[in-house]
Amino acid sequence: MTVTDELLANAERYAASFDKGALPLPPAKGVAVVACMDARLNPYGLLGLAEGDAHVIRNAGGVITADELRSLAISQRLLGTTEIILIHHTDCGMLTFTDDEFKGAIEREVGIRPQWAAEAFGDLEGDVRQSVKRILADPFIPVKESVRGFVYEVETGKLREVS
Amino acid sequence: MTVTDELLANAERYAASFDKGALPLPPAKGVAVVACMDARLNPYGLLGLAEGDAHVIRNAGGVITADELRSLAISQRLLGTTEIILIHHTDCGMLTFTDDEFKGAIEREVGIRPQWAAEAFGDLEGDVRQSVKRILADPFIPVKESVRGFVYEVETGKLREVS
Repeated sequence: MTVTDELLANAERYAASFDKGALPLPPAKGVAVVACMDARLNPYGLLGLAEGDAHVIRNAGGVITADELRSLAISQRLLGTTEIILIHHTDCGMLTFTDDEFKGAIEREVGIRPQWAAEAFGDLEGDVRQSVKRILADPFIPVKESVRGFVYEVETGKLREVS
Repeated sequence: MTVTDELLANAERYAASFDKGALPLPPAKGVAVVACMDARLNPYGLLGLAEGDAHVIRNAGGVITADELRSLAISQRLLGTTEIILIHHTDCGMLTFTDDEFKGAIEREVGIRPQWAAEAFGDLEGDVRQSVKRILADPFIPVKESVRGFVYEVETGKLREVS
C-alpha cells in the first residue's frame, strides 16, 4: 500500500461527510494566494480559509514565474479576484542551494541541463519583493491595488509583512 | 479594510495557538500533490493532510507546465518525495474558454498577446492523462513509480481516479 492509497482512504471519509456541493466557481473572498509548496505552510489553517474562499497557487519557493502570471491572469480576468497575497517562509529549501549547483548536478546525472531557472534565492525578504515586482510589471494582470508580500515563520506560526 | 487585512487577523489567531514549530523541512509523507487552484478544492481537508505532510503545488487547472516540472524536480531531488498525486476537478474554469479566445481578448485590451499558453482544456479526464504523460516524459523527475491522476467532484466531494 502506497501513501497515495492511504490518502485516498482519507478522501473517502471527506466525501462521506461532504456538505459543500453548492459553492460557486468564483472565490467568495476575491483573493488569490501565491505560496511556497512547503509542507509546513498550510494556507487554509494560517489564513482561516474554507472551501470556496480563495484561489491558492503554489510552487517551489512561492516565486512568480510565467505559470503564476498565467494563473493570476485567469484568476482575475475570468473569476473576479482583486487581491493578491504572496507568502514565502523561513527555513525554505530554496535558500539551501544555487541554480548553478542544482542544474549542474542534474546535468551531470541526466546529461541534459534544465531549460528552466530553478529560482533559488539567497535573500528571503528580497525574493518576496522580487515576486511583488514581477506581478506589478506584468501587463496581463489587471488589478494591482492590493499585492502584498509576507514571510511565514515556520518556527513560530507568525506571518509578517515584507515592506 | 481589505479582505487581506481580514485574513491577516486570522493569521494572528493561528500563530496564537501554534504548536508545530519543530517540523522538519522534508514532507513526512513523501508525497507531492499537484492540484487546481480552484477555491472549492481544499487538498488538506480532502486528503487529510496536516502541516508537515506533503508538498502542495497548485495553478490554474492543475496542469503541468515548466514550473510544475521545476517544483517536482526540487521536491523529489532535494526533499525526497517519491509519489505524485494530480488533481483536476469538475466544473473547472479551464473548461469554459479556449486559449485563442482568452489570449485574443487580452490582446484586444492590452495590445500584447501573452507569450504563455493559457492551458484551457475541453476534456477533463483527457487533461489529467495529459498531465500524467508530461510528468512521465520529463527527464528531470527521477521517481515515477507512483504518478496517479484524479478528478475531484466539487458537487459530491468525491475523488475518482482517472485510468
